[in-house]
Amino acid sequence: MHEEIIERLAELAVTFGANVQPGQTVAISGEIGKEPLVRALAASAYRHGAKFVDATYFDPHVKRARIEHAADETLDFVPSWYGERVLEIGRQRCATISLSGPTAPGLLDGLDPTRIGRDQLPFVKEANTVVNERQLNWTAVPCPTPGWAAIVHPELEPEAALARLWEQIAHVCRLDEPDPVAAWEARFATLTTVSERLTATRFDALRFEGPGTDLTVGLLPSSRWLCAQFTTVDGIRHSPNLPSEETFTSPDPRRVEGTVRATKPLVLGGGSIVRGLTVRFEGGRAVAIDAETGADVVRAMCARDEGAARLGEVALVDRAGRVGGLDTVFYDTLLDENVASHIAFGNAYRMTLDGADVEAANASAIHVDFMIGGDEVAVDGVTAAGERVPVMRGGEWQL
Amino acid sequence: MHEEIIERLAELAVTFGANVQPGQTVAISGEIGKEPLVRALAASAYRHGAKFVDATYFDPHVKRARIEHAADETLDFVPSWYGERVLEIGRQRCATISLSGPTAPGLLDGLDPTRIGRDQLPFVKEANTVVNERQLNWTAVPCPTPGWAAIVHPELEPEAALARLWEQIAHVCRLDEPDPVAAWEARFATLTTVSERLTATRFDALRFEGPGTDLTVGLLPSSRWLCAQFTTVDGIRHSPNLPSEETFTSPDPRRVEGTVRATKPLVLGGGSIVRGLTVRFEGGRAVAIDAETGADVVRAMCARDEGAARLGEVALVDRAGRVGGLDTVFYDTLLDENVASHIAFGNAYRMTLDGADVEAANASAIHVDFMIGGDEVAVDGVTAAGERVPVMRGGEWQL
Repeated sequence: MHEEIIERLAELAVTFGANVQPGQTVAISGEIGKEPLVRALAASAYRHGAKFVDATYFDPHVKRARIEHAADETLDFVPSWYGERVLEIGRQRCATISLSGPTAPGLLDGLDPTRIGRDQLPFVKEANTVVNERQLNWTAVPCPTPGWAAIVHPELEPEAALARLWEQIAHVCRLDEPDPVAAWEARFATLTTVSERLTATRFDALRFEGPGTDLTVGLLPSSRWLCAQFTTVDGIRHSPNLPSEETFTSPDPRRVEGTVRATKPLVLGGGSIVRGLTVRFEGGRAVAIDAETGADVVRAMCARDEGAARLGEVALVDRAGRVGGLDTVFYDTLLDENVASHIAFGNAYRMTLDGADVEAANASAIHVDFMIGGDEVAVDGVTAAGERVPVMRGGEWQL
Repeated sequence: MHEEIIERLAELAVTFGANVQPGQTVAISGEIGKEPLVRALAASAYRHGAKFVDATYFDPHVKRARIEHAADETLDFVPSWYGERVLEIGRQRCATISLSGPTAPGLLDGLDPTRIGRDQLPFVKEANTVVNERQLNWTAVPCPTPGWAAIVHPELEPEAALARLWEQIAHVCRLDEPDPVAAWEARFATLTTVSERLTATRFDALRFEGPGTDLTVGLLPSSRWLCAQFTTVDGIRHSPNLPSEETFTSPDPRRVEGTVRATKPLVLGGGSIVRGLTVRFEGGRAVAIDAETGADVVRAMCARDEGAARLGEVALVDRAGRVGGLDTVFYDTLLDENVASHIAFGNAYRMTLDGADVEAANASAIHVDFMIGGDEVAVDGVTAAGERVPVMRGGEWQL
């Protein structure tokens, strides 16, 4: 019964998300357990003229074996061919489609958080390079699995939970529209207008205020707001995230001050669930990290390199999007980040910046979003003169 | 209930098969569906000091989508990073463990055999280089799956078929011995003695005679018989195939004459089953290929390059081994080749040759074995003077 949704999602991801061109090689990546969608994507890509589909499956159980047994000093080792492959995929101007959603949430529970934090796979830092240089037309789409459905809908039987999650994915990806591509074109037109309006304000900073949150995020002079509609160096338009309801930019990594409380749990690579995260920033750096669960994993992650404890993204999300309307915690950043405004530790998206600001943007081997917005969080813009301008109240735009 | 067999097989493959050394990166590869053994191997490798485990899963359904939909002229394309990865695994002196056994036999049925023959993946030709240069300590072991068990034991219910296949694998891999490593050391000592005796004969050729078969396979002056006990350039002893009951060498690719009838079906990469294969050789080349099923796939495969229609291996197998005793067709070369003497189209193993013969050995992007021996097939050695010396009768050594 999910087969039709799978077919429609594959078609949307290939033709609109990645916008695969005839003759391209397409790299598809997902965790073990996502075979049905990987296969539908491969068939769709070939039907639309792909030269080759390189499908790779990541096995989180193999990662667990590593965290459990490997020597401490080997835990951040990544074979040279992992990065080389990614750079080559960029050089050869391939398309990529990656599947989000945890297949085995909680799998790393009970292991040493410091050791977990040292292994960032399946993320490979060279991915930042090829994305920032706009070499790829790429997309990420969610792929339900029984393990994921069980944590999103623990009150349902396994089959019903999986069916419910697929229905929700169909809804948030607008697959229930007669013409999903037209629906996305309309939504992105709205988000583009909002982004252009925000960019025109030239705010010096944003201020978030709400329960547990009083945070000022400095912006760079050229910080440009964008929605998730990118164009490669070769002019291929693509939608890097489906669904996407956000507008985002790169903040000043030196000017973030105050305290923030995450408004949603997040699942880090490999399955650690972080709940009740609070972070205090000074001079742009996260100087105190606490949480009800998983604080150690976040601390280890932020200790990875100099940029890992600084911000690489700030994004605003209103409540008009489809994800927020479901009132569901998905434990998947691709979905949850579209419920609420968010910030991200780590590497910045340099296409939002110009000139000297490109060098000033945050650099890191990681990029990890966490949600800080919601109906109770007010967002103001702060002008260069120190004036405060309402940007969002109760999840609605004020601009 | 297979869990204990899986653990024992993983331990044998890591400690004796590949003989993984502390600090090595270990590449483990298998088709989707082999997760339980891949994970047990990864855990065992890490416990024995591996620096990193690179587990890759091949999805034959994605291959099917390619054969079905991709443009003709793209079908032998392989992304550059596939070969680069293999060469780098060699340069970095990694260990590799690959899992045999078809997960989806018959999956390619009904597709154009010429198109099937052009896609040799998951085989990558650079694998020949790193094996011939003895850079890797490697092994291949069988891994049962429900799909494989169903064709080996069609008379049994799915669960019983899988249980039966695992039991057979445990038996042929000598996991039912109190000390499987000691059992293999003893068997390889015997095969080493036979190999040394064959090498000492310096036969000019071998002659196979049986139902449908009258084949002369010329040998090279330096052809050395070996059993599956290799040593890397760095002195790491390993067992490339488990189980292995054979002694093999590289023939003269220019001097193969006559007709041969395969004594077992074979399953080619991706799931094509070839039954009743007969091949006529002239001047070393396969000039006529027929079969009850799958002849077109073999013909396309042999048309791949100049060496693909010539022989790269001849191997002798007696009936004392454990595989033959089961009287089962496994549809997996790793197992079936240990029932019966066999030959292989394609690339030669150069470690069996010296001096100028290394250049004379067959070169190809493929290496595909097929079984030609059995109790009804007599094997003679032919001396340089033309004298015939019995080598095998009724599956028993005559030397």
